Amino acid sequence: MTTATASVQVDAAIIGAGSGGLTVAIGLSQFGKSVALIEAAEIGGDCTNVGCIPSKSLLHHTAHQDDRLASEVLAKVRERRDSLRDHETEEFNNKDGVNMVWGRAKIDAVDHITVTHADASTTSVVAKHIVVATGSRARRIPIEGLAEDRYLTNAELFEEHDAPGKLVIVGAGPIGVEMATAFRRLGSGVVVLDAAPRILPLYLPEASAIVERELTKQGIDVRAGMVAKSFDEATQTMQIGPLDGDATAEITGVDRVLVAVGRVPNSEDLGLEEIGVEMERGRIVIDAKGRSSIDGIWACGDVTTEGATTHAANAWGRRIIKHIIAPPAPAGPAPLHPAVTFSNPEAATIGEQPEEVPSDVRRVVVDYGAIDRSYTDEVGEGIIVVDVRRFRGTVLGATVVGPRAGELISTFSLAMKNDIKFSKWYGTVWPYPSYSDGIGKAVDLYMGEALPNIHREFAAWAKGKVGRLVK
Amino acid sequence: MTTATASVQVDAAIIGAGSGGLTVAIGLSQFGKSVALIEAAEIGGDCTNVGCIPSKSLLHHTAHQDDRLASEVLAKVRERRDSLRDHETEEFNNKDGVNMVWGRAKIDAVDHITVTHADASTTSVVAKHIVVATGSRARRIPIEGLAEDRYLTNAELFEEHDAPGKLVIVGAGPIGVEMATAFRRLGSGVVVLDAAPRILPLYLPEASAIVERELTKQGIDVRAGMVAKSFDEATQTMQIGPLDGDATAEITGVDRVLVAVGRVPNSEDLGLEEIGVEMERGRIVIDAKGRSSIDGIWACGDVTTEGATTHAANAWGRRIIKHIIAPPAPAGPAPLHPAVTFSNPEAATIGEQPEEVPSDVRRVVVDYGAIDRSYTDEVGEGIIVVDVRRFRGTVLGATVVGPRAGELISTFSLAMKNDIKFSKWYGTVWPYPSYSDGIGKAVDLYMGEALPNIHREFAAWAKGKVGRLVK
Repeated sequence: MTTATASVQVDAAIIGAGSGGLTVAIGLSQFGKSVALIEAAEIGGDCTNVGCIPSKSLLHHTAHQDDRLASEVLAKVRERRDSLRDHETEEFNNKDGVNMVWGRAKIDAVDHITVTHADASTTSVVAKHIVVATGSRARRIPIEGLAEDRYLTNAELFEEHDAPGKLVIVGAGPIGVEMATAFRRLGSGVVVLDAAPRILPLYLPEASAIVERELTKQGIDVRAGMVAKSFDEATQTMQIGPLDGDATAEITGVDRVLVAVGRVPNSEDLGLEEIGVEMERGRIVIDAKGRSSIDGIWACGDVTTEGATTHAANAWGRRIIKHIIAPPAPAGPAPLHPAVTFSNPEAATIGEQPEEVPSDVRRVVVDYGAIDRSYTDEVGEGIIVVDVRRFRGTVLGATVVGPRAGELISTFSLAMKNDIKFSKWYGTVWPYPSYSDGIGKAVDLYMGEALPNIHREFAAWAKGKVGRLVK
Repeated sequence: MTTATASVQVDAAIIGAGSGGLTVAIGLSQFGKSVALIEAAEIGGDCTNVGCIPSKSLLHHTAHQDDRLASEVLAKVRERRDSLRDHETEEFNNKDGVNMVWGRAKIDAVDHITVTHADASTTSVVAKHIVVATGSRARRIPIEGLAEDRYLTNAELFEEHDAPGKLVIVGAGPIGVEMATAFRRLGSGVVVLDAAPRILPLYLPEASAIVERELTKQGIDVRAGMVAKSFDEATQTMQIGPLDGDATAEITGVDRVLVAVGRVPNSEDLGLEEIGVEMERGRIVIDAKGRSSIDGIWACGDVTTEGATTHAANAWGRRIIKHIIAPPAPAGPAPLHPAVTFSNPEAATIGEQPEEVPSDVRRVVVDYGAIDRSYTDEVGEGIIVVDVRRFRGTVLGATVVGPRAGELISTFSLAMKNDIKFSKWYGTVWPYPSYSDGIGKAVDLYMGEALPNIHREFAAWAKGKVGRLVK
């Protein structure tokens, strides 16, 4: 039995030093609160270590053809990642008002955490508030016959020292699609599978189709509606087939398999169940203020039911700061999260866009081909899709696929947060020749279609409103 | 003496088929008006032929190192330009409701234009409305001793068949700076002069300084505060010196000189003075509806006193459409024009940003270095500068220098047009890791600085308000 060798008393103890935890730690300490930041592995969480930072660095270094070796590029990516992590670690080890505690946390009571260090010694942390920001990890699915050293997730991928000759990516979500474009550029043969009938299944089908065509042009072999069935190490052959059926095809000569089929919340062994925190499929249920079901226990980021991106963790972390500092402040509406896939082409989406357009919604579609900058930059396909409530003009959702989509969706994020009706976007001068000019074309189209039919727009909106009220 | 061989009677005659003229022609014909579109040279105006399109195409083709010859790139740029022009010409020659009239226009009366064709025959155009959209041309300043075939403006530049060994660019505005980065990439030695003490003199000094440092890093020789004094053809040497003084230095081995020192409105020989249209230094004075001082004569674009960019011409063209279709409609506030220089790095600005910050304005500055995407993309310098009226939070102006600046400024354009106070930008979720995330950092900084000092913000605003009322 080990004894607590140290003890800390703080206003807030934060478990996990990723995007969410760092946000809360910095924010609360700026407001003069004493903070303990507990981390079992590395500062920066998945984002800095095995997520956004290395993946975007790799995408940057593979954005244009050059004559570097894949091994050089991968080494460079690790170097950039390590340098940022070292910098962040240095910063937090010495940050005023933040007590960095390295080790594994277990919540013993609503105001008490025991942290177990690598040497098995412990620190007792007493805190008025506990914030759980432990994030998530890649979901590992079994692939029968596949050797462990061929099996990669985002946690292992960036430790590869060369581009695999042939890489199979299981899961065509944002991570799968981004890494497909990057490794293809590094020279790998790339096959992408997804159980869903199309890649990027959380995007509009039009968006998925464009990205799929662009990937195919780049020489990436896209197999939608397919899952890995088994692997034969002797021949390095993967059997694949539809989810509900036998293997129907095989991929030979496979060197590595990247599994990117979703995330598992890091919610085990924290003592959450013991103190009665409400969970939903392993995720902490939070309210609009970021509170769990137990008073004094807060949570943000991937470990919660709300959002699983760096910016979502950050946005919810901000809410927690606000409500710890000013408990009676109203929570306001939930933050609206854009999502971006930084592949080539970029794909971005925000808000609600059902596949089938409801009758009280006007869907405006602009092809990137209509944007003059696409002509000068010789862009392939791209699209801007905006859903607007008829008559009212409320922007409900938007999808952008094409260069700089991640910046165009930011304009939507700001405008939707402030509920700028789409008709009020008219008259904005979009710089020529920017890609944002395409947003202007969407507004023109909307005004040209909606205004002359304003009585019909009203009828459709009114009917839809009744429908929504009845629901 | 020639006789009118044809005659046309229309609702509106538009002189000039550039950005402004095309906008008005398309718009009015969509509203069922009969339109004559008169053009003396080529469809698309400066933008398509010698401006945005070839320059951005050249910037695109020189954005990344590759092994193509400069001559191949320049040929490709011309091919792209010609193909777009041919497409536009075909389109307008056959457009329903638009009567294309090729020739030189002279306004004889407020409702009558005589168009002289290349073969000296004429067409008489009778119109209820006349819209002057004749644009501008490069200002040509004399450089003593310089041979005509070395002297280029944007009109001749894209006809060059190879990169000059040494190119001197006189004038470091947007055109000069863009072409400096492009020709440097093509392999030219590039020297940039400007009479002003810094490049991009219409931008904030901080912005100019960053772009200047980046140009210097690229091997471009920047000489601010210098003008061309004379040229010796025997030795291909240019004498340069300060505006008010003798030559103080020389540039040897000069192959070509690109003069980009501003624009001259194409307002001569149109009959404007004869019918009494009010002009200001050669530019047509227009009111908020786009009307000249003479009823029935409208104007937009470079030939007017309002804005000299493709998007300004387009924005004012839209106003003209609106007020021809619905004369009593209120004009509303003047359109807010962003300006973008598409060099490497991009620089963009909107609104009012005096060099010296007034006491009732809070200037928020974020370095691109604070944006994580800059880290992954290994961006050099960059900056976001936002001016906000203290206490009120009105965004008065913004400057962005760095990758994708032209898209970031678009977010400002939409938000400023709708007067979204800067505090209302708070809570927007900016996708991670986008460059727009830097806007979020500016908002954070503003909230962190302004909120805790709200009483001082109020005092500064109130004092400024009195000051502005007195003025």
